[in-house]
Amino acid sequence: VTGPPVDRAHLVRVALGDEPADLVLRGGVVVSVATRELVPADVVISGERIAAVARPGEHAGPAAESIDLAGRFVAPGLIDPHVHIESSNLTLTELARAIVPRGVLSLCEDAHEIANVLGLPGIDLFVEEARALPLNLLLRVPGRVPALPAHLETSGHEMDLDATTALLDRPDAVCLGGDINPALLLGADPDQLAKIEATIARSKTVGGQLPGFTGALLDASIVTGIEDTHVAESVDEVLEQLRRGLRVLLTPRIDRLPAEDWPALAGALVAHGVDTRNLLLCSDDVHPNLLRREGHLDYRLRLAIESGFPPVQAIQMATLNPAEHLRVDRDLGLVGPGKLADLVVLDDLGDFAPAMVLHHGRVVAEAGRLTDEPPPFAYPSWSRDTVHLAAPVRPGDLAVRSEGERATVRVVAFGGPKTMHTTELGVVDGIVRPDPDADVASIAVIERHRRSGAIGKGFVSGLGIRGGAVASTVNHDSHNVFVVGDSHASMAIAANALAEAQGGYCVVVGDQVRAVVPLPIAGLLSDRPLAEVAEGLDQVERALLDELGCGVPYHPVYALNFLCLPNIPDVGVTDQGLIETASMELLSTVVDRC
Amino acid sequence: VTGPPVDRAHLVRVALGDEPADLVLRGGVVVSVATRELVPADVVISGERIAAVARPGEHAGPAAESIDLAGRFVAPGLIDPHVHIESSNLTLTELARAIVPRGVLSLCEDAHEIANVLGLPGIDLFVEEARALPLNLLLRVPGRVPALPAHLETSGHEMDLDATTALLDRPDAVCLGGDINPALLLGADPDQLAKIEATIARSKTVGGQLPGFTGALLDASIVTGIEDTHVAESVDEVLEQLRRGLRVLLTPRIDRLPAEDWPALAGALVAHGVDTRNLLLCSDDVHPNLLRREGHLDYRLRLAIESGFPPVQAIQMATLNPAEHLRVDRDLGLVGPGKLADLVVLDDLGDFAPAMVLHHGRVVAEAGRLTDEPPPFAYPSWSRDTVHLAAPVRPGDLAVRSEGERATVRVVAFGGPKTMHTTELGVVDGIVRPDPDADVASIAVIERHRRSGAIGKGFVSGLGIRGGAVASTVNHDSHNVFVVGDSHASMAIAANALAEAQGGYCVVVGDQVRAVVPLPIAGLLSDRPLAEVAEGLDQVERALLDELGCGVPYHPVYALNFLCLPNIPDVGVTDQGLIETASMELLSTVVDRC
Repeated sequence: VTGPPVDRAHLVRVALGDEPADLVLRGGVVVSVATRELVPADVVISGERIAAVARPGEHAGPAAESIDLAGRFVAPGLIDPHVHIESSNLTLTELARAIVPRGVLSLCEDAHEIANVLGLPGIDLFVEEARALPLNLLLRVPGRVPALPAHLETSGHEMDLDATTALLDRPDAVCLGGDINPALLLGADPDQLAKIEATIARSKTVGGQLPGFTGALLDASIVTGIEDTHVAESVDEVLEQLRRGLRVLLTPRIDRLPAEDWPALAGALVAHGVDTRNLLLCSDDVHPNLLRREGHLDYRLRLAIESGFPPVQAIQMATLNPAEHLRVDRDLGLVGPGKLADLVVLDDLGDFAPAMVLHHGRVVAEAGRLTDEPPPFAYPSWSRDTVHLAAPVRPGDLAVRSEGERATVRVVAFGGPKTMHTTELGVVDGIVRPDPDADVASIAVIERHRRSGAIGKGFVSGLGIRGGAVASTVNHDSHNVFVVGDSHASMAIAANALAEAQGGYCVVVGDQVRAVVPLPIAGLLSDRPLAEVAEGLDQVERALLDELGCGVPYHPVYALNFLCLPNIPDVGVTDQGLIETASMELLSTVVDRC
Repeated sequence: VTGPPVDRAHLVRVALGDEPADLVLRGGVVVSVATRELVPADVVISGERIAAVARPGEHAGPAAESIDLAGRFVAPGLIDPHVHIESSNLTLTELARAIVPRGVLSLCEDAHEIANVLGLPGIDLFVEEARALPLNLLLRVPGRVPALPAHLETSGHEMDLDATTALLDRPDAVCLGGDINPALLLGADPDQLAKIEATIARSKTVGGQLPGFTGALLDASIVTGIEDTHVAESVDEVLEQLRRGLRVLLTPRIDRLPAEDWPALAGALVAHGVDTRNLLLCSDDVHPNLLRREGHLDYRLRLAIESGFPPVQAIQMATLNPAEHLRVDRDLGLVGPGKLADLVVLDDLGDFAPAMVLHHGRVVAEAGRLTDEPPPFAYPSWSRDTVHLAAPVRPGDLAVRSEGERATVRVVAFGGPKTMHTTELGVVDGIVRPDPDADVASIAVIERHRRSGAIGKGFVSGLGIRGGAVASTVNHDSHNVFVVGDSHASMAIAANALAEAQGGYCVVVGDQVRAVVPLPIAGLLSDRPLAEVAEGLDQVERALLDELGCGVPYHPVYALNFLCLPNIPDVGVTDQGLIETASMELLSTVVDRC
């Protein structure tokens, strides 16, 4: 799947000791993920690959170089089976600087975010950037770009069945992405089923996403051919999914199986000897300040171990299990002969802080840092010019209008899952007013790809925002500008500041822009270092919490990224308005009285 | 891989209860091989597939038919990942009669035996026959037909790289067979590496065979791309293979990891919590009288359970593990939504005696018998006319000739592995005489495909044969006629009797034919019922043991099938003479004194 063609004849001769190895890691203890053992062995490397895993001292052949591991552990490089690079708000180069030293060497990237903005050329930016980086970029081909039909949401680009199939044909595309509205599966959407058949015909993996599905909903989704899900909410749900043969991808989420629930999960599985071959760790969305604070897939691995999974079993969940799931186990996931020499050298399995990382047989990181500075990658100008409003936003553009003195409106209630309820709001000068006292804020989604001027308007509760507005171009899945606030004036200022910055995050207090993080690449990525981006986001978050009084306890800025997403139950907001997830229909914000 | 295209939209509606199921198995306990649990559930079937695995009583939709399982177990149909139908000496129809009621529903057949005799048309006979049978015939594409270059052995047919690749393109071909001389791997044979690359390019599985390989030999073989082996000799060897990521296929063999060693294997793996996902059961060569006496893959499953593997873990080794190895886990190996409804209903997991068997959603066997008589399948005349000797064999044709009164000769010593030693024998009238007192018999391999008249001649020890001869056309891999005896006259009678019968087994005592089992289809298969073939072979075996005094304790007739095989160390015999496995070179029987 990655790297040059394999010279198997040469590997045979190196294994036999008839030709010299390039590198031998001597005196280590291999984390044998195939058997769940720790096995002292020398790892013999030739070019990109492992030629032999020999008993200590037994490899007879010469070697150009040798490293004494002095009893350290050698584990396979970590494989992230479901990740969105875009959620890091970093370039892939900057992300690699952060994760490769942590041992994360393979990313299976569902690039539906950048694809919604830039289409296939956006995906290929990552592919091109990855070529010079010490990691393997595997693609989850976006399952649905745009996520919704054009009359429900405006996106920057489309990938139809032909484009999807063409991408599936590429060797780096190992999986069909499943981050789609699951109603498409339950409705047996012909276009989606055709994409699934195309994936199966190519012997590739079919991804899925089944939020809160149990029983018949779970069965009905699985028979479409999907093979994984990554949004389980409870231990019972994980078990029910595993029993049906699904691969379950775990990442801690505040609203779904949070870190605090992992010990219960580990307890339920480990104590009962449940087979965990289909349990995988993934990072999905790792935002920059969490990346800096906690780590990436390595954090999830530590969490699994702390939660009670035995270390080698947990390492399987980030190496062999994802390799098998993605059908790349011929090349990755195991310290074994013939596999790519993607290796992590560790003093301790539990803290998983690599002393050394090898990619394709070369040492690429030591003690938490890349050994070589990656070459600069220049994002082209077309990728930096994507926030196109029809005109500067005026406060009145964001208003929901109604007759009379009061109106009954539909309100999106923040939470997981989001729900919808109705409430009465006052009408002044024909404009339905948000009610911060009742924790009802205004929300708007402003089309930013095609200068159409479309703005979806509504109300949201549960955020506690007062005295300003927050806005971002990071807004799944089409990444139009969302803005939430208790004043249309503040909201307009925030939206216009983002247009000026070509995307990013922005908090406005009153009429003052208090914090901006520019994300000029596709309105999703910064070109700055992790520390700077993370600090900027911390500022945004502090402004949101301290100055706007936002009541979302855990990383409100990220919660807001998903607030509008119509694919996750029960409801979302697009530039076209309020969308009900299950029916995929537009709802009016003002409830018609009839 | 098997069955009609999947109507996923219909399955969705059945799962949701919106359209009627064809059959619901209610009140059973599903053997959940994905999690290693026993889970009460109703299995909802639509057409060939499982639409839902519902909590008891929860499936809401109507059903055309329903069966109350009253607490019985429902397991996936067994999958045999490495089998040679030919070793049963039965037609596939007769084999299906025996194994389908035992729950064996998928065979991954390496048809190199019939291919060596009849080529691809021979393989397609099985494929055609399987169409009307309640089992899934998956192909291991023979890795090397003929096994040896033409100057070392004469076969009936060839499959070159193009023919192999064309067969790999077929959907029923899931694996490249690995029953080849492992020296081809260690020598990085370009033709063999090309076949492996062709298999990998098609996302299919690469089989292997690594007799007694450890250390560097094991590594050097694996880097060629092979993914399994099935000839481990010891518990340590199994562990060493598993640690390197190989799939290890287990079958008890008298000379390699016999049934008596399985408890030690189970102990070593289960007690230490070794992951067994890469451990599989297979039948490989199940001969008719053993089939009748012990069973097939079901016997190996019982043996695994008796040896100490927990029942569900053992069932994984015959269901999910082989499905994953053969990359057919999208369709097979699990009682889960979307999978083919190949199911086994059991009162008891340990004795694995299916009360009922379903194939593709239909009940096909109950209480040990097929519910419907399979339609007759007529093997064409060209498949029944394959034993073509140049002329009737005369005793002198089988003689090794030498000058003088004594000669030093190379002798194949029976055993696992076979070894080679030298001894002195008397020469009378220019003919080197076998020496039954020293347990040195004559052996000859008579070309039977092309009337070439080629006869390879040599000596063998360790069989204890005296007073006659034994012959067979079952003689891996080219299936020329082998004959062993202490008298060239008896040997000639045996060989000519087999030519008359168009193949089979024959024992001659003195000048009397004492027992014959005709195998007229390709010289490998009988067209008679299992009971009759098994009884015939018992007679051959009794004659061999009681009248010829053969000292091979365990099924000598089958041991003899492999006696000449040059692919298994250290030595073999072909119609061209004595072949050394490692060097793949011809050796003279009479040692040149110089």
